[in-house]
Amino acid sequence: MKDLYPSRINGYPKIINRKDPIIYNSTANDGPLNQSELDFYEDNGYLFMPNLFSTDEVQILQQELRRNMNDNKESQEPHVIKESQGNEIRSVFDVHNNDEFFHDLSSHERIVSIAQQLLGSQVYINQSRINFKPGFKGKDFYWHSDFETWHMEDGMPNMRAVSCSIVLTDNYHYNGPLLLIPGSHKYFVQCVGDTPDNHYLESLKMQNFGVPDHDSINWLLEKGGKIDSAVGPAGSVLFFESNTLHGSNSNISPLPRSNVFFVFNSIENKLVEPFAGTTPRPEFAANRSNIKPIIPKNFEMTKKSFMVNKQYYYR
Amino acid sequence: MKDLYPSRINGYPKIINRKDPIIYNSTANDGPLNQSELDFYEDNGYLFMPNLFSTDEVQILQQELRRNMNDNKESQEPHVIKESQGNEIRSVFDVHNNDEFFHDLSSHERIVSIAQQLLGSQVYINQSRINFKPGFKGKDFYWHSDFETWHMEDGMPNMRAVSCSIVLTDNYHYNGPLLLIPGSHKYFVQCVGDTPDNHYLESLKMQNFGVPDHDSINWLLEKGGKIDSAVGPAGSVLFFESNTLHGSNSNISPLPRSNVFFVFNSIENKLVEPFAGTTPRPEFAANRSNIKPIIPKNFEMTKKSFMVNKQYYYR
Repeated sequence: MKDLYPSRINGYPKIINRKDPIIYNSTANDGPLNQSELDFYEDNGYLFMPNLFSTDEVQILQQELRRNMNDNKESQEPHVIKESQGNEIRSVFDVHNNDEFFHDLSSHERIVSIAQQLLGSQVYINQSRINFKPGFKGKDFYWHSDFETWHMEDGMPNMRAVSCSIVLTDNYHYNGPLLLIPGSHKYFVQCVGDTPDNHYLESLKMQNFGVPDHDSINWLLEKGGKIDSAVGPAGSVLFFESNTLHGSNSNISPLPRSNVFFVFNSIENKLVEPFAGTTPRPEFAANRSNIKPIIPKNFEMTKKSFMVNKQYYYR
Repeated sequence: MKDLYPSRINGYPKIINRKDPIIYNSTANDGPLNQSELDFYEDNGYLFMPNLFSTDEVQILQQELRRNMNDNKESQEPHVIKESQGNEIRSVFDVHNNDEFFHDLSSHERIVSIAQQLLGSQVYINQSRINFKPGFKGKDFYWHSDFETWHMEDGMPNMRAVSCSIVLTDNYHYNGPLLLIPGSHKYFVQCVGDTPDNHYLESLKMQNFGVPDHDSINWLLEKGGKIDSAVGPAGSVLFFESNTLHGSNSNISPLPRSNVFFVFNSIENKLVEPFAGTTPRPEFAANRSNIKPIIPKNFEMTKKSFMVNKQYYYR
């Protein structure tokens, strides 16, 4: 398969044009987003939808997040990521596979139908996690394109994936909200350097590879004209394109920031061998031969419905 | 001298009431601030004045900041503070003594008259610095009350000082602006722990002592109701009370953040022996016996005026 987006090359960084569509043959008739929402996503590479989940639903989501964090408190498993200083949990990965509640949530029609509309096909969850950025000492996360990593290290061939972040705490300007550069999804920044094998084990703690250079970030910011912040009340949902440059500052405020994060990939964009030539993560290797599109479910999110429904798919 | 604000005590942290006035017998007749500005400062502990310096003046100020930074690039002197990782300059201290331009600026009527009005007396510069928070990798600065440090380590007896920060770059929410907790100046947080001797040499790089505890910060935030951010265009000036709790998040954005920082102290609040019982910094020991109140000067800030005027006071 031809590598449309080579990266981590020796020599100088370079910016190339995006080679894939942004929205895949969809119109306002194909899903819940209207034309102006589709246009905003097309132009900026993200769409922030305030209060997509209600206050009551947020309460359940927060409860389940705390419950999951608590379940994993003593875990040494690789899907539980701790802060690089200290023992506090920063993220729990793969929650659509290892947690009943979040498995169900990942098929909720309210978000899946939007992902389907944006990607113009059936979708599956390529990656999921819950993130917890504690108050007082939440660390920053440097600028990056998720696609660069997914392409190089996981073998995602095309830009046809969308990240969905369900915001579970009020996001203010001062508690480390996601920052995005509008329009950056239209360009691919070729990063410098090689990828070490098994890099993914370290990359959540300290980023070293797949890091865009200063000049490229400046160039994208000049094009985009501003940095946008995903601030808004708990229950809001941010959709952002796989290649949109984003990051976040630290959080010294007492207010923690947590969210649920699903990456929807098009069923027509299945993973292949990593383009960096490295060994893929085991879960992604498995993913390739065992992908079922999500059947969106419209259900009421009550504590009870999640307690009684036990027919889940587990890998 | 009785210690009105004991801190760094063994055992538990404690919050006590402020024992000094906030504004010292001043009214709107005593200076440039009107009654509503005085009230805002009294209630919140700070006052942000947009565009107190013009665009032309900002240009001169920025030039002089860069010139000073450049002069100090290779300096190993203790008044030049580098980032804890790397060799980049974070701050240059004592610029009202060691730099002609910033010495003159520290007597500019536009700021001195406000300091005099707030402190109800003649004033002198107790401390000055220029700060440079680089783009891409500016570090965060944890919550603190300046007064706690100045009291314990430098021997400032009373809360009768005001910090003046002249903002030299546009401050956005996302490039690490100063964060403040409104009303926090009305309470003194007694911090836990002892002060090692010569702590000041390290304290700008990594804060360990005089750090308020989480519960106290939460309590102050609940009282204050919000976190405020000093965002605004270059040329704005922030005045904040010596005891106002403040800090800042990191800055991953490409936009650097720099400012000039003067601490005006009342001539009636001269330093004494440090209340922590430690050795005072040499410059503050000298300060105590050699203090002249500032005579405010109203002058046009042009490149030329600073080049020809060579009659400066140097220690």
